[in-house]
Amino acid sequence: MKHRPGRHFLQIPGPTNVPDRILRAVARPTIDHRGPEFARLATEVLEGCRSVFQTSDPVAIFPSSGTGAWEACLVNTLSPADKVLMYETGQFATLWKAMAQRFNLDVEFVPGDWRHGVDPGELEARLIEDRQHAIRAVAIVHNETSTGITNRIADIRRAMDNARHPALLFVDAVSSLGCMPYKHDEWGVDVTVTGSQKGLMMPPGLGLNAVSKKARAASKSSRLSKSYWNWEDILGSNVDGFFPYTPATNLLYGLREALAMLFEEGLEAVFARHARHAEAARAAVHQWGLELLPLDFREYSNAVTTVLMPHGHDADAFRSLALDRYDISLGMGLNKVKGRVFRIGHLGDFNDLMLMGSLAGVELGLRLAGVPHTAGGVQAAMDVLSARDAVAKQQLQPA
Amino acid sequence: MKHRPGRHFLQIPGPTNVPDRILRAVARPTIDHRGPEFARLATEVLEGCRSVFQTSDPVAIFPSSGTGAWEACLVNTLSPADKVLMYETGQFATLWKAMAQRFNLDVEFVPGDWRHGVDPGELEARLIEDRQHAIRAVAIVHNETSTGITNRIADIRRAMDNARHPALLFVDAVSSLGCMPYKHDEWGVDVTVTGSQKGLMMPPGLGLNAVSKKARAASKSSRLSKSYWNWEDILGSNVDGFFPYTPATNLLYGLREALAMLFEEGLEAVFARHARHAEAARAAVHQWGLELLPLDFREYSNAVTTVLMPHGHDADAFRSLALDRYDISLGMGLNKVKGRVFRIGHLGDFNDLMLMGSLAGVELGLRLAGVPHTAGGVQAAMDVLSARDAVAKQQLQPA
Amino acid sequence: MKHRPGRHFLQIPGPTNVPDRILRAVARPTIDHRGPEFARLATEVLEGCRSVFQTSDPVAIFPSSGTGAWEACLVNTLSPADKVLMYETGQFATLWKAMAQRFNLDVEFVPGDWRHGVDPGELEARLIEDRQHAIRAVAIVHNETSTGITNRIADIRRAMDNARHPALLFVDAVSSLGCMPYKHDEWGVDVTVTGSQKGLMMPPGLGLNAVSKKARAASKSSRLSKSYWNWEDILGSNVDGFFPYTPATNLLYGLREALAMLFEEGLEAVFARHARHAEAARAAVHQWGLELLPLDFREYSNAVTTVLMPHGHDADAFRSLALDRYDISLGMGLNKVKGRVFRIGHLGDFNDLMLMGSLAGVELGLRLAGVPHTAGGVQAAMDVLSARDAVAKQQLQPA
Amino acid sequence: MKHRPGRHFLQIPGPTNVPDRILRAVARPTIDHRGPEFARLATEVLEGCRSVFQTSDPVAIFPSSGTGAWEACLVNTLSPADKVLMYETGQFATLWKAMAQRFNLDVEFVPGDWRHGVDPGELEARLIEDRQHAIRAVAIVHNETSTGITNRIADIRRAMDNARHPALLFVDAVSSLGCMPYKHDEWGVDVTVTGSQKGLMMPPGLGLNAVSKKARAASKSSRLSKSYWNWEDILGSNVDGFFPYTPATNLLYGLREALAMLFEEGLEAVFARHARHAEAARAAVHQWGLELLPLDFREYSNAVTTVLMPHGHDADAFRSLALDRYDISLGMGLNKVKGRVFRIGHLGDFNDLMLMGSLAGVELGLRLAGVPHTAGGVQAAMDVLSARDAVAKQQLQPA
Repeated sequence: MKHRPGRHFLQIPGPTNVPDRILRAVARPTIDHRGPEFARLATEVLEGCRSVFQTSDPVAIFPSSGTGAWEACLVNTLSPADKVLMYETGQFATLWKAMAQRFNLDVEFVPGDWRHGVDPGELEARLIEDRQHAIRAVAIVHNETSTGITNRIADIRRAMDNARHPALLFVDAVSSLGCMPYKHDEWGVDVTVTGSQKGLMMPPGLGLNAVSKKARAASKSSRLSKSYWNWEDILGSNVDGFFPYTPATNLLYGLREALAMLFEEGLEAVFARHARHAEAARAAVHQWGLELLPLDFREYSNAVTTVLMPHGHDADAFRSLALDRYDISLGMGLNKVKGRVFRIGHLGDFNDLMLMGSLAGVELGLRLAGVPHTAGGVQAAMDVLSARDAVAKQQLQPA
Repeated sequence: MKHRPGRHFLQIPGPTNVPDRILRAVARPTIDHRGPEFARLATEVLEGCRSVFQTSDPVAIFPSSGTGAWEACLVNTLSPADKVLMYETGQFATLWKAMAQRFNLDVEFVPGDWRHGVDPGELEARLIEDRQHAIRAVAIVHNETSTGITNRIADIRRAMDNARHPALLFVDAVSSLGCMPYKHDEWGVDVTVTGSQKGLMMPPGLGLNAVSKKARAASKSSRLSKSYWNWEDILGSNVDGFFPYTPATNLLYGLREALAMLFEEGLEAVFARHARHAEAARAAVHQWGLELLPLDFREYSNAVTTVLMPHGHDADAFRSLALDRYDISLGMGLNKVKGRVFRIGHLGDFNDLMLMGSLAGVELGLRLAGVPHTAGGVQAAMDVLSARDAVAKQQLQPA
Repeated sequence: MKHRPGRHFLQIPGPTNVPDRILRAVARPTIDHRGPEFARLATEVLEGCRSVFQTSDPVAIFPSSGTGAWEACLVNTLSPADKVLMYETGQFATLWKAMAQRFNLDVEFVPGDWRHGVDPGELEARLIEDRQHAIRAVAIVHNETSTGITNRIADIRRAMDNARHPALLFVDAVSSLGCMPYKHDEWGVDVTVTGSQKGLMMPPGLGLNAVSKKARAASKSSRLSKSYWNWEDILGSNVDGFFPYTPATNLLYGLREALAMLFEEGLEAVFARHARHAEAARAAVHQWGLELLPLDFREYSNAVTTVLMPHGHDADAFRSLALDRYDISLGMGLNKVKGRVFRIGHLGDFNDLMLMGSLAGVELGLRLAGVPHTAGGVQAAMDVLSARDAVAKQQLQPA
Repeated sequence: MKHRPGRHFLQIPGPTNVPDRILRAVARPTIDHRGPEFARLATEVLEGCRSVFQTSDPVAIFPSSGTGAWEACLVNTLSPADKVLMYETGQFATLWKAMAQRFNLDVEFVPGDWRHGVDPGELEARLIEDRQHAIRAVAIVHNETSTGITNRIADIRRAMDNARHPALLFVDAVSSLGCMPYKHDEWGVDVTVTGSQKGLMMPPGLGLNAVSKKARAASKSSRLSKSYWNWEDILGSNVDGFFPYTPATNLLYGLREALAMLFEEGLEAVFARHARHAEAARAAVHQWGLELLPLDFREYSNAVTTVLMPHGHDADAFRSLALDRYDISLGMGLNKVKGRVFRIGHLGDFNDLMLMGSLAGVELGLRLAGVPHTAGGVQAAMDVLSARDAVAKQQLQPA
């Protein structure tokens, strides 16, 4: 092992920088998952999860990746040949679609340009057209980690309501939960899917589903085979604080700590922090004269900023140089935007000075890689923070 | 939180006492799962796993429980209505059977009394009878954690060979791998299933499959739906040290450390240690005048000792008392033996004095609970260890 | 590094088995020792220390060993040629005496046989004889870690009072604080000296002084040179939660956790636990037919049991064998009893089953080393615990 | 506890940001300090220390702060009324002087303005004048942490040699060792004093002395009282890997890891990194239009940059605001410069992006506090790094 000095800057859009407090929690000794101490742990974690999802519905936690939680969503609610409406908003929507097809679902996949999110009006029209209500479920990725586009779930819900369409609403909140406002109940989401390693600040290894009453009812008639992902097994056991099979106890320790940290800071403060950092990051990109991948400002993500490379410059070569020289991991372009974009993650356990270090890493890397840009991005980001802080300071002062 | 003094004795048959060295490894900062440092980690772990399974075949690692690895085994290799031969050797065989049925497999489940393992002769006869080779797979639990019975896989393999039957052989080695000799290649196992939290000394959260060439070939024609568990995705990505979805990085840190520890001690020494402790534990049970659940000495487990309670005494009340008063977690009786047995786990990261403490916990608990027994079990166990050590010492001395 | 399976049994009489909860606390990131967060930490720790010492006097914490806290006691209170009365109760009394001589103090060192503690009557007579009150201080080791003898401080205080002698009373409570009742205020101790690595369950690295008003007054006229150990500097800074030089922040994290654990268990429960274990350990020694070093049962230590080896057997060879074969560290014989005794530490974060494992390690070691003894020590210890628990159980039951 | 998001920036000039790798090492279970495993640990650590001090002389490690190591240096070598020559280069020189006076040494304390280091020519003249060789020792602080001034030890050695003066040379390398080149042997230093919590990247709690043969010889005739600090005890025990009293085992684990990390990176690379960061930090200060406290560029420190506040602005109010709002700890002005300077520590485990975050914290803080300055300091620092990296990149390319 060769020591690299200082902290690594893990600025991919997840896994995020896991705070040492969570790492220490994860390192507690494993206990009997059928004993009373475990039951207290599980009950506390499940209760806390409901608060973060903003739901009174139950939450299922799987030892799995977020991908597993996608699968749990589909196999619990649907039957072969069921029609699902999905939108090509980026790589994760594309992967979820491919998964649905593997389970012989009939996916209507609305093509997209990876630079726009779902148009709620288009969705409404499409649902109105589905007079037979053949569409059993609409599945949307809230925050497309691959593009930095955040879909407007509240508007999508409204579109479904306007169309008076009974389809289930599935939302992938893997990279939005704990970063930006998310309201499972208020938005009438039926299944929210997430993972531990983004806004929840955890190591990867847990997949989660928040499950509405309607979704759970749908699971009774679902004919897709399932065992590991079966909600009834897990939600049934959870009532007493247990699991149908050995849970990932140490990751649950971490999740308990993560939830405590979110509540200490306050969810509203957490969301405001992410908004602040995203605005500053975009100011830097603007100053550099580079282009954001998302084209609609209403869909800018507060979790990740995706930047187009100027023509003739390879984003992966730039990322590799930044990693080698400045010890910063940036997100790669996936699939259709491979080599053409890089992504700056600014989600999870993060603060102003970590953001400044990260943006400096990008700017230093651009310079070293010979990518055309205008210097001053870090300064522009600082200006955003300063302006906000000056206002806040003034408001605190007596008139 | 109320402090209980001293170390808890986690003597359920898994999760086992996780060594602090592994806990510290798990607490390392999470890294980019698509970067070069991760690729080195994954490659090293996958290589080490092959050594422990004693195979040159690839090993797939899932973020999951061992149960998930059962599911991966079934859905990758089989198609609906395929016939699978299973034996009721205890609770885990029963659960695996139930899972197979959920996937619409046609399970031939040979009944058992929970006190005997699989009879290789009976198996051979049954396979010979299956002239059409309708049986696609034989699935056996190597070490039945619920009963303390270890099936003789080498003999079962021989029976299959004798019968010249082409069925696939699936083995659940969840509580045997890293505890007793296991030879995936030599025994011609097609899929070995395991989890991280037993002989691998890890927290729970990883499920593993070792996959023979024959099993992988079978997966090409399998028609059970799969996505998360799909071997092709994972084994394909693994070639370069990556995973098709975000892996449980921190648990992989732990697994790397666990493998290093097994190799430092030496697998043969690890197995000898487990045999030594199991023999001592049985001597204690014998001295107490209590009865072992397994009836055939050839099937005694080296990982867990399962003890029948005298009639009129509830095993769970005894376990609860031992936990409250002596801070030791013992395994509960499951399903058909609920309340009738308790189980002493002596697997994983364990040594002579931890065993003595554990047996003392049982004996003190029996006494306090008023369970009829003869004192002296701990002494009897010490006699076993002493006798072995005296011999070893003599052998070291010059003639 | 070669992995040894299982937990090491660290049964020297300190450092003791540090609980993982404290180790995790010690691993928190270091902070600014001049910032507000540190001030809260220090204030909380200092307050908790006073509770453990059972004093309302201030406590000084040095980055040092317990030896350093001895030195702090002497150099803060005395002047060259001052007369100090000390008793040869074992190795630590002898070392403290040697230290005093290095500072040109005039030590009256009452010889002892290492098998008895201080006789309060003898002390009283000696003080009465000192009509000029030449003796400035009486310095006693509360629990002689080297011999397993506990001096009766309350009686010693009474003797001083009876003699109406104004000498300061210094007590080394290094291996008694947090193990057995200790009352700095009630016993009129002027300086209590301790270290972090025994009953406080911590890694070594902190030395502590509880300082009475009388001792602090004496420090004003003391003419021994001092800087690092100067109470005025440290107690003055402590008022605001700071230190005159960089404190050992991470060890203070651990101490805060240790104090919380002691209070969660309750000091009385902690003392009762140590008494219980010591009684059981002595029962084992008795059964083995071996002899305790201490001859007066009123002076038996609850922290450490010191055992004489039969003639012709080397204690160090036995200890080395026990370490090699059973992974248990036992305390060595020091100075006058080198090679003639071994010591079993049963203090700090310890419980019944750890004690049983430890005694099993001793008994297995005796057997392997060919030391003449009668088997059954572990059983005898279990009988002690069982008898106590049976009584406790009965008392809980309704009449 | 209230969670603050992200990593704290601990930019006081020590304790420094302790890398998690060291924190995990510190959290290993404590072992018997008289056993074979400890002896291997101590031997390895002591050997590594010699490499860092660049000496073949022995190194003594005390459980203490760096202040303790100052005291060890004085009391081991000197006798009451011995004359010591010291220079007022800042707060730490002043404190060391005060300590020497407490031990009744006759200190000649050459006054200074806190903006210059020692003038070797002046020193040479002063020594030449001391024809009787009354001066027994010259004591210099290598890097004055309070002012950011680095004394030129090689030149000072040359001055002493030119004067043919036999005085001992004591050097405080607390905040220079592991940050900038240090050569105990080559520079003919007699006692080098350091602590664990600066360039060694450790938590505080260890004080170290490297001891030349001449210093050790001097200790034979020294008449200052000593016990805890006595070199003979410690260096004697160290020969076999032991200590005369319980060492701070867990901190030694950390030191072993720290040494490994320094050697992995390479000492020359470590020094170059510190030089790089210091140059960038000064560029930022220059751009801000603020003044450095040191006036002679040859004495600029590579470990800490000390900045004068514009008149009418309180440095402590600024620091407090930066801590509250940007979660960065900056060093306070001590003694004569209290409230007039702030200090930016850029030593220890640190990298480019951490520096950029730190400088951003200062610039944001200056702005929020309304301290007059020109924006662009971070940018200026980036320019320094970029320019260096561009040259390095070019040199790597084929002609």
